[in-house]
Amino acid sequence: MIHTKIWIENDQGEMVFGAGQLKILETIENEGSISAAAKKMKMGYRSMWGKLKKMEQRLGKQVLIRKKGGASGGTSVLTPDAKILIEKFRYINQKINLDAENAFDEIGL
Amino acid sequence: MIHTKIWIENDQGEMVFGAGQLKILETIENEGSISAAAKKMKMGYRSMWGKLKKMEQRLGKQVLIRKKGGASGGTSVLTPDAKILIEKFRYINQKINLDAENAFDEIGL
Repeated sequence: MIHTKIWIENDQGEMVFGAGQLKILETIENEGSISAAAKKMKMGYRSMWGKLKKMEQRLGKQVLIRKKGGASGGTSVLTPDAKILIEKFRYINQKINLDAENAFDEIGL
Repeated sequence: MIHTKIWIENDQGEMVFGAGQLKILETIENEGSISAAAKKMKMGYRSMWGKLKKMEQRLGKQVLIRKKGGASGGTSVLTPDAKILIEKFRYINQKINLDAENAFDEIGL
């Protein structure tokens, strides 16, 4: 079976968006906050925060709306830009996977 | 810029062929022997030999014709099956890369 992976880099060869970034955004969306997502992904809060900062900087887009306060330490929701980004990435990912399956079915190895 | 990676796994989820396997075959073809290729790739001879055995077993195809003997310790040439395999893998790789570039140009992130 053929497997595929896609990711986006900027002109400097730095990672902009890939499976790791997607997973972070999906987990924040599900968990409702950076700290809960970091816990879920067994990642340090600072490490995840750093990745989010880099992601926003390299995309030139804000991906989270952070709501501070409360005993729970605040929540985060994805921006519309982030939701569109996720949809586009999933779409290209699926398309590429299907293209690869078709090519592999056709010619094999 | 979008980047892609493809690889083939068997039904047991074991790696059959990917960029690493391609690199090994290409290097053996260029260097003329497993030992020279291992040296070039800074890999142990036994490690490379193990990877080649696994590759052949999982593909169900012989990839090398080993010619023993001589002071140089013998040479290895790729089988026609291996050459076809390389061409097919490169073809799918290029096709997928192009498909991804087109999709990314079209919808972006």
